[in-house]
Amino acid sequence: MLNTIFTHRSIRKFTAEAVEKTVLDDILKAGTRAANTGNMQVYSIVVTQDPQIKQKLWEAHFRQNMVLQAPVVLTFCADFNRFNKWCRLRKAEPGYDNFLSFMTGAIDALLAAQNCVLAAEAHGLGTCYLGTTTYNADQLIDILNLPESVVPVTTVVIGHVAELPELTDRLPVEAVVHAEQYNQYTPGDIDRLYAEKEALPLTKALLAENQLETLAQIFTQKRYTRKDNVTFSNKYLKVIEEQGFMNNSDKGQGTSQ
Amino acid sequence: MLNTIFTHRSIRKFTAEAVEKTVLDDILKAGTRAANTGNMQVYSIVVTQDPQIKQKLWEAHFRQNMVLQAPVVLTFCADFNRFNKWCRLRKAEPGYDNFLSFMTGAIDALLAAQNCVLAAEAHGLGTCYLGTTTYNADQLIDILNLPESVVPVTTVVIGHVAELPELTDRLPVEAVVHAEQYNQYTPGDIDRLYAEKEALPLTKALLAENQLETLAQIFTQKRYTRKDNVTFSNKYLKVIEEQGFMNNSDKGQGTSQ
Repeated sequence: MLNTIFTHRSIRKFTAEAVEKTVLDDILKAGTRAANTGNMQVYSIVVTQDPQIKQKLWEAHFRQNMVLQAPVVLTFCADFNRFNKWCRLRKAEPGYDNFLSFMTGAIDALLAAQNCVLAAEAHGLGTCYLGTTTYNADQLIDILNLPESVVPVTTVVIGHVAELPELTDRLPVEAVVHAEQYNQYTPGDIDRLYAEKEALPLTKALLAENQLETLAQIFTQKRYTRKDNVTFSNKYLKVIEEQGFMNNSDKGQGTSQ
Repeated sequence: MLNTIFTHRSIRKFTAEAVEKTVLDDILKAGTRAANTGNMQVYSIVVTQDPQIKQKLWEAHFRQNMVLQAPVVLTFCADFNRFNKWCRLRKAEPGYDNFLSFMTGAIDALLAAQNCVLAAEAHGLGTCYLGTTTYNADQLIDILNLPESVVPVTTVVIGHVAELPELTDRLPVEAVVHAEQYNQYTPGDIDRLYAEKEALPLTKALLAENQLETLAQIFTQKRYTRKDNVTFSNKYLKVIEEQGFMNNSDKGQGTSQ
């Protein structure tokens, strides 16, 4: 277990080899063993292997090549649709059309996703998360026919590793860990904690390539710009509302069946 | 790895034995090896062991006993504070005061949390997630001194197991997995997928104890009521806004330093 965790890296090049059904079944079952809220299991995993649907997912995920290369694409969704249906068939009126319920489903979905990733890696396979899931969730809803009360939260591609990269650098553990309470960072702390990352050959290469002065500017001006973040913030909030998770008043709606 | 995943159960009774520092360090390091968005690592882990602070956390977490019993409480937060400080010290203007950035940090925090849980279990320790984190996030912010751009998302308690419960039941894997696209559930599907859960002795006992007709009613009327969900939805949205993640317009704010 610990070895699997400590040797994790995101894989972006896959062979054409399929993932065996028994292995995929084990990965999915591992997902369902993750802790979840009140044992309601308010998430779903959509397993896409069909090349035509994968092609559409590839478009929605900014045409990242691993979506086409990897034989299996798992879309993890916050999902109260199943639970609500069960409630209504059992003389119970669900009150899960609000933001807290979306968060509950998102948390369930993400813990299940990490279990699937580690199970896949324990089986010798490679994985990669797609952050683009929250950007183009509206497109994923169309492609995967997601009904009301279902919102995509993350995506994992899985396949056989064609190219194993080095372990990715991380900030020192002390950068993300706070003892007892939150310890604010002084400018000196920031300098010290980011020193190793800023001195990496990869960083130097990126600065030359982008003709920028600092690594932080590559994030704010190239990779994760305010303009994009604002666009995708509003799109995702709209998706959450349209999928029925923004009725934050005491009045029940009883919308979808 | 797979054995750890498949034998997971939430532990709610702990011995008084402390968690060794080297083991805790390994658990926290395991958290930092999880995949994260763009390698920005926009999350933090607050490690609370001090009995007085734990007492306050216990109050905020609905006085669930495991918060007092377990020697270690880990609060996982979406955190752009560190990243924003780094940007500003490096001539870069961060645009991360919006909802997408909150989601990005929450995703990072949750993947790290699941790594910590599995690492703790691989070390023979017990763990339990506290869903109450999103309910009383405002109180956790006060107790843990969380600054702007930091929002608690989940909490994990860790300690030595005093009582090992049976594995918890789960819906059949086919209940949460959809092939290629989302397959809507017929009433017959719901009956079939929930049959085993509804027939459990635990379910029968709960119905008798609560004098209710269906298990679903225990969720909607007792455990997760609309009234509570609405209250906590509005509280959590307010927290997200107050911590600086709801400026979803193109205009930069440049608020916190």
